Amino acid sequence: MEYREQYDRYVSAVEETIERLLPQTERECPDVDGMIPAHLCKTMRYSLLAGGKRVRPVLLLAACDMLGGDIEQAKVPAAALEMIHTYSLIHDDLPGMDDDDYRRGRLTNHKVYGVGHAILAGDGLLNYAYECLLQNAMGHEENLKGHVLAAKAIAGRAGVSGMIAGQSLDLLSEHMPPDLNRLAYIHAHKTADLLTAPLLAAGCIAGADDAQFKALSKFGMCVGLAFQIDDDLLDVEGDAQLMGKRTGMDAQRGKMTWPALMGVEASRAKSRALWSEAEASLSCFGERAWFMHAFAGQLRERKN
Amino acid sequence: MEYREQYDRYVSAVEETIERLLPQTERECPDVDGMIPAHLCKTMRYSLLAGGKRVRPVLLLAACDMLGGDIEQAKVPAAALEMIHTYSLIHDDLPGMDDDDYRRGRLTNHKVYGVGHAILAGDGLLNYAYECLLQNAMGHEENLKGHVLAAKAIAGRAGVSGMIAGQSLDLLSEHMPPDLNRLAYIHAHKTADLLTAPLLAAGCIAGADDAQFKALSKFGMCVGLAFQIDDDLLDVEGDAQLMGKRTGMDAQRGKMTWPALMGVEASRAKSRALWSEAEASLSCFGERAWFMHAFAGQLRERKN
Repeated sequence: MEYREQYDRYVSAVEETIERLLPQTERECPDVDGMIPAHLCKTMRYSLLAGGKRVRPVLLLAACDMLGGDIEQAKVPAAALEMIHTYSLIHDDLPGMDDDDYRRGRLTNHKVYGVGHAILAGDGLLNYAYECLLQNAMGHEENLKGHVLAAKAIAGRAGVSGMIAGQSLDLLSEHMPPDLNRLAYIHAHKTADLLTAPLLAAGCIAGADDAQFKALSKFGMCVGLAFQIDDDLLDVEGDAQLMGKRTGMDAQRGKMTWPALMGVEASRAKSRALWSEAEASLSCFGERAWFMHAFAGQLRERKN
Repeated sequence: MEYREQYDRYVSAVEETIERLLPQTERECPDVDGMIPAHLCKTMRYSLLAGGKRVRPVLLLAACDMLGGDIEQAKVPAAALEMIHTYSLIHDDLPGMDDDDYRRGRLTNHKVYGVGHAILAGDGLLNYAYECLLQNAMGHEENLKGHVLAAKAIAGRAGVSGMIAGQSLDLLSEHMPPDLNRLAYIHAHKTADLLTAPLLAAGCIAGADDAQFKALSKFGMCVGLAFQIDDDLLDVEGDAQLMGKRTGMDAQRGKMTWPALMGVEASRAKSRALWSEAEASLSCFGERAWFMHAFAGQLRERKN
């Protein structure tokens, strides 16, 4: 099967699952237990259905396929991961964080619904992700331990020693001198951890062995870091005509970048090395890794 | 054993567990996997260790004891529930929500650390609650299903058809005419659900039967609603000397209250009926419910 076709099939599976887990409700004070009030539901759906590329859930489904796991068991965890990614974007956009008015060409959640409701939409998506993960685990009691481990892997990578740790350091960094160690920490946790989470979760559901977990973890980390370095390089190349020398901070965004801290050439070399390492880490999966190879290639070319 | 002595023992168990799960770290970019960055850790601890009465975790431990369950298995879920309660307070205090500068006589989290870090402290506590619940579940594999059901019960009551649903309606209500159905919904979900959560979680861990679950649920809901009605009555009695007639909204806070919507006498009668119903729901537990009876009595007298 062609890569694009397969990617679209994964995306369809994710969209269907999201729609099943979070359909628009109608009543503000539902009298049915477990029903979500209409407005809260709307605020969550606004951002969750904002047309992202579904990179993280696709990674989860693809890794599950690669490992020979049961894709049916992986659909809810994939959707839950997209909920977690979406909540982090809603909260990142808030005043006091990045304070953004637009995301992907649409007004941010708090610009449409107000700050209070945006905070709750984010909280709601985060909590609902775990509610869905736990519900799904109970629906697959034959693989309960695998699902608990998957949820735990997601919680670890999304949480206070994962993505949230990266966000916290990123925010703190605004008042600190640039530092390469810190930049690496921020990118490893703010970005790469949430790309590794779906791979590890798939491993837990499909019963991967230690060598496979190690390879999945390596692939996620390398792809995540390489993507971030390329992002910084693209920014620099875009800014190069406009600006002169740099000082370790990206002048436009007030943030540290790889090229500013280690130079453009060294950044390019590091990116190349990481993409190669990502590809190499897939060797233990043989031909079953065809989609992952193509995925990494597309991500590198920014075609996903 | 005396009630107060037992209460203090439960609180000590909760405090020790919190300290074990979330000790203050020292490094901003920890090189150890799973370590929380120092500043993020500090912001989470600031609110988690702000000296609350630990009502919800105490309920969880007490219910576990009442059901003859293993208290060791319940300590982490109890601490996780306090994390969830604390995150909800941090986010409730933010600008865009209640915008409060003080809570329990101390500056609110965002007044000390800024809005961005307070949002992350809240997100961190919520996510870490589930991380701890899942870690704890894996540590008790002999009762894995019980722990997954406990985490699911907590997620359900804390989430988008539970506490967050109540918060959302509460916020939305500011722009709506007063309505008794909506007020009941808000209090049932914003307050009572997070009192019911520990009781149901304890039931899952201790393997309660259907009748016991029904009784626990009833007790939590009655106590939560009665407490809220009394809260509104105390507000009215405090305001009575200052103000004249009321219009369905609490003039001071711009929020709906029970006495304003159904009258003072009817509110008092409803409160009395709910406290009685709460007591009656404990009958199936016999003498093992001595602490729960005392707990309800103390809560009613506001002595916890």
